[in-house]
Amino acid sequence: MNDNLDSLFKPKSVALIGASSKELSIGNVIIKNLLHYQFRGPVYPINPKVDEIRGLKAYPSILDVPGEIDLAHIVIPPPFVPAEVENCGKKGVRAIIVNTAGFKEMGTEGQALEEDFLARAKKYGIRVVGPNCQGIINSDPAVNAYCNFTFTYPVPGHISVVAQSGGVGAVIMQAFYDMGIGQRMYASNGNGSDVSITEILSYYGKDDGTRAIVLYAESLQNPQEFITISRGVTARKPVLAITAGRTEKGAEASRSHIGGMAGSISMDLIYKKAGILTFSSQEDLCHAAVALSSQPIPRGNKVGIITNTGGPSVIAIDELVSCGLEIPPLSEEAAEVLNGTMLESASIRNPLDVVATAGPPHFKSAFEVMLKEPQYDSIYLNFVTPPFVDCENVAREIVTAAKSGGKPVVCNYMTDKEKWGGTSRILKEGEIPCFDFAETAARALHSLVRYHEIRSAKPGLVKTFSDVDKETVHTILLNALSQKREVLTAAEVYGILEAYRLPVALWKVVQHVNEVAEAATGIGFPVVIKADSEEIIHKSDVGGVVINIQDADEATRIADTMRKKLGDGVHFFVQKFLPKGQELIIGAKAVESVGHVIMFGLGGIFVEILKDVSFTITPVSDTEAISMISSIKAAPLIDGYRGGKGINKKKAIEIIQRISMLGTDFPAIKELDLNPLFATGDEICVADARIIL
Amino acid sequence: MNDNLDSLFKPKSVALIGASSKELSIGNVIIKNLLHYQFRGPVYPINPKVDEIRGLKAYPSILDVPGEIDLAHIVIPPPFVPAEVENCGKKGVRAIIVNTAGFKEMGTEGQALEEDFLARAKKYGIRVVGPNCQGIINSDPAVNAYCNFTFTYPVPGHISVVAQSGGVGAVIMQAFYDMGIGQRMYASNGNGSDVSITEILSYYGKDDGTRAIVLYAESLQNPQEFITISRGVTARKPVLAITAGRTEKGAEASRSHIGGMAGSISMDLIYKKAGILTFSSQEDLCHAAVALSSQPIPRGNKVGIITNTGGPSVIAIDELVSCGLEIPPLSEEAAEVLNGTMLESASIRNPLDVVATAGPPHFKSAFEVMLKEPQYDSIYLNFVTPPFVDCENVAREIVTAAKSGGKPVVCNYMTDKEKWGGTSRILKEGEIPCFDFAETAARALHSLVRYHEIRSAKPGLVKTFSDVDKETVHTILLNALSQKREVLTAAEVYGILEAYRLPVALWKVVQHVNEVAEAATGIGFPVVIKADSEEIIHKSDVGGVVINIQDADEATRIADTMRKKLGDGVHFFVQKFLPKGQELIIGAKAVESVGHVIMFGLGGIFVEILKDVSFTITPVSDTEAISMISSIKAAPLIDGYRGGKGINKKKAIEIIQRISMLGTDFPAIKELDLNPLFATGDEICVADARIIL
Repeated sequence: MNDNLDSLFKPKSVALIGASSKELSIGNVIIKNLLHYQFRGPVYPINPKVDEIRGLKAYPSILDVPGEIDLAHIVIPPPFVPAEVENCGKKGVRAIIVNTAGFKEMGTEGQALEEDFLARAKKYGIRVVGPNCQGIINSDPAVNAYCNFTFTYPVPGHISVVAQSGGVGAVIMQAFYDMGIGQRMYASNGNGSDVSITEILSYYGKDDGTRAIVLYAESLQNPQEFITISRGVTARKPVLAITAGRTEKGAEASRSHIGGMAGSISMDLIYKKAGILTFSSQEDLCHAAVALSSQPIPRGNKVGIITNTGGPSVIAIDELVSCGLEIPPLSEEAAEVLNGTMLESASIRNPLDVVATAGPPHFKSAFEVMLKEPQYDSIYLNFVTPPFVDCENVAREIVTAAKSGGKPVVCNYMTDKEKWGGTSRILKEGEIPCFDFAETAARALHSLVRYHEIRSAKPGLVKTFSDVDKETVHTILLNALSQKREVLTAAEVYGILEAYRLPVALWKVVQHVNEVAEAATGIGFPVVIKADSEEIIHKSDVGGVVINIQDADEATRIADTMRKKLGDGVHFFVQKFLPKGQELIIGAKAVESVGHVIMFGLGGIFVEILKDVSFTITPVSDTEAISMISSIKAAPLIDGYRGGKGINKKKAIEIIQRISMLGTDFPAIKELDLNPLFATGDEICVADARIIL
Repeated sequence: MNDNLDSLFKPKSVALIGASSKELSIGNVIIKNLLHYQFRGPVYPINPKVDEIRGLKAYPSILDVPGEIDLAHIVIPPPFVPAEVENCGKKGVRAIIVNTAGFKEMGTEGQALEEDFLARAKKYGIRVVGPNCQGIINSDPAVNAYCNFTFTYPVPGHISVVAQSGGVGAVIMQAFYDMGIGQRMYASNGNGSDVSITEILSYYGKDDGTRAIVLYAESLQNPQEFITISRGVTARKPVLAITAGRTEKGAEASRSHIGGMAGSISMDLIYKKAGILTFSSQEDLCHAAVALSSQPIPRGNKVGIITNTGGPSVIAIDELVSCGLEIPPLSEEAAEVLNGTMLESASIRNPLDVVATAGPPHFKSAFEVMLKEPQYDSIYLNFVTPPFVDCENVAREIVTAAKSGGKPVVCNYMTDKEKWGGTSRILKEGEIPCFDFAETAARALHSLVRYHEIRSAKPGLVKTFSDVDKETVHTILLNALSQKREVLTAAEVYGILEAYRLPVALWKVVQHVNEVAEAATGIGFPVVIKADSEEIIHKSDVGGVVINIQDADEATRIADTMRKKLGDGVHFFVQKFLPKGQELIIGAKAVESVGHVIMFGLGGIFVEILKDVSFTITPVSDTEAISMISSIKAAPLIDGYRGGKGINKKKAIEIIQRISMLGTDFPAIKELDLNPLFATGDEICVADARIIL
């Protein structure tokens, strides 16, 4: 990974291969955008048929351009792209944006063209954005690069955007613009054939002018690298992402859109692992970015509320509480001060209703007192602009307070922004994040708290168990793979589990009916007998599983029946029958180029009906394992219910971590299910298990 | 209820008692608003100290005004209000808006003043809006009444708003204004001392110019009347409401705000019963109102998607599917037609991606084909405005299609609205509901489907059981009430349940230890024995409940132990011990002036940990009872799970309806709990119950 993308984001000169005199064509719009946005360097239209485009001298070929070229756009049809990339190499171009579509996403012919031009770029050390993309924007007044064919001209600011889909990127850019919020850099990299989202993220992470990063991705080329890099970035500044393709239908649409692999569930888990704030709504994401790029991060989830109108504060509280934020009461001392400074009709509590007639001194005192209260980590403000109040000076008090406090202030600003232009300007210049609705302001405040939680979360320890026997597992897997088997036998499964010191009930495999009774007696009754054969997957369907067998006679009789039914080749897996405890399920599923996704749940109806399970990507640290256990809805059951003892969490955490290590050590394991485990007393024991390669 | 509010909403003349020359005072702002909004009738400022205000002749008293007065604002301090109401009566004023605050909401003194002026108004037959309110607006050009001190001048349209909180009302009004959406009427009635929200709702319901009604209420004076009236309105046009005070903290804030009763849970249930669409977000509500006031109601939940950009359609599908909408595939015939009409790079399926370069003919064909597909009830459109496309003519095609189809069209319109002013205007004049984000457009479409479901839902039958014995219940309750008891004894509880033919296990109450064995033998072992005394509420805590007693000796011994522990006064409630089946819980809780809220759930962890319960306000119809049972998350358990038989739904529905009838017949029952009931085989039987008066 090479994240020095200066020639892309800070080009000193730009050429456009495929520049056109035709208004509204991409080859014309990009020239127009570069000029309109006042790009600081020279712009070179390349077109062999005309002399000038939009007042700029046009050149027949990029090789004819007299000066050096940092960045070249290519907007010509796919078949002509490789040759022009070759020319760019000869000319010493450092970065190329291929806007043209019709490559990998259109089938094998396009794929070949894409590989061709990429190889040529690589030969010359040129970085490529696209193909099938919009390009980049850098609003830094020292650069003013609008290397993009869209239509929103962002004002300089502190939010940078990287989007796989230009459509979504454009919506987000426009949303910030409509809110009057500045942006720093923008990139939409389409097929992402070379410069990756991860590299751009890393570049933004090092850019001092970027305070918050917005990300839209439907797939990732190298999720593990993405996680590693993102963790470094999110420790310093917030990264916000839309979880796209979170429904099956959405994921389907996403696949066809960009020609990549969309892992709907795993994208969410990747983001979580990377410390990225996820959103299911673009608008919420934009609002959060506004707050995160302008306000300090609170130290906790406790909110003081100031309001000059009643109803909106009811709505704000509903939303804040629903988000899990707390609204602690005012201290007595604070109430005493406010009783002296507020209007008679004010309501002295939290929420502090200064009432609609409150003027600048009332707001000033309200902020001074509330900001000083140690039990508030942030201030939520409802501010409506009554026609009978000096709102501009109220706004000045709000800005002064926000600058002084070290605590974030988020505002539901209710007004006609044209008529109250002066007030609006003061709030904006004071970087007060203002939102039209109480709910949206509350959710923006929640995002500040979420980022605080991410930043202050302990990374946790990924435990490496030294008592495991990798050799045995290796041998079992190799044997199965050499026989081209996907489903492991019970003996293999339990062999692997024992090798990784997972708690399994005593077991033995015997070949013949007449050995069953002795094996069972050795294990101790009651036992389970399972027909063990490589060919039988759903054993219970064919009478291949009998539980709770009480004595030797019964064991022999049952084994004999199985043999008659399933043939002489059958083996017998005899295992101690466990007393039924609280069911648990722990599983692992390999995800291409990500690792394994580990699942935890309470089994039975909790999994099958209530879908009450939690997931984490390997390697699972101890804190992640704890969070997996405590984040299911039925978590109180784990702590014990109706006088029950609950389950041994320490053991559950260890099992999760051992399974995580097993997955990491042996990527060949595609699926592993411990289902159920039974938790009884202090013990947790695997009652049934399955491994698929 | 009298919903002829013409003198309020269509006043021919307006007076302002407390008019003021002081800029920014309420007494001046209202005059300014009336003039600015071009009120069609005369405006009379009333002020004894000045001759004119804002160019209008001022009168010392309302009695000095020469002409007739329909509507008077009163903005003077509370102590002077009663006398002025008296004067209004003498003058023949028909309606008054009391903007002044400081009445009921400020304590007993204010309450007395409120009662005083109300009595005077009633004497003269004057309707009063407020006190502590903004007032009304009517944008009908024939009226142009801006009888309100806020600052947004709505353009004429089809959405009418009624809000208890002026703050929330103003936010909603401003939101519509900012979206360029017209409004019809507006009312904020504050304390609601006379004209009620219900009356205003009814008035809007009869107003032909109103197509959708937006409601914000934190409390209701007469919920039953509200439900009856609203049902009539919602059958004809959609009513949309914010559920305020949905969290405990929010409800607290709401109570102090308006001085009324806030029933957070019950408001939601009241709205549901009334057929009102509820929202937890003001913005979602506003967007829904835009769609509902401009588009036809779809006949189902199946959506055809047209898009000219990829990413936003992934997001749209995520949101549509999350809302429960379906996205069926294109028919083969349709695909064939589109293969001939679309651009080569178009994706011919649902979503239909016409791609960014698509022009007017492509959109025309896309709409023609998709609208004709019988499997689509509505069309969702993502429309970004590429700089290289004739967007104005695309917009014309969209409008033509929407007008022709009889199916609703909702649009995620992605553009810079200033630069694409022409395109935006065409869509707006064509009444295409346009939203900035894919998610918000998808949710607006969902609200159309929700209203379809409300309108097409069968009302259901409230069954009156003729086999119940009201007399017995009446006697039991009368006896307990006469003894000032709140908690009924087990004998009383089971007596009531039996009188309403609810399935209870055999039981008997005996006075002495030596009668217990005989009673138990008569019932048949195993039995439960409970110490039955008026003083013991938590029987199990004091050893007053023993279950699963197997024979006569054990029964006598246990009864004797109870007597020794709890005293000679104790009685013994002996009951058949039920085999443990699937636990259920059914309860009823009286809510002041609403009726009872009936609860259904699966008992145990489902109630206590997962809070998986459903509620309905009495009387509960059969369809409502069915919906209660099927709407819990664990509903699949009711149908049977892992080979289990499930529970007898018909019996569960009957029990819910009998409990509903019991509550309706006997409002004195404050709380009733059947917890648990056991469902085994085809039977459901009450295993424990409690009634509190």
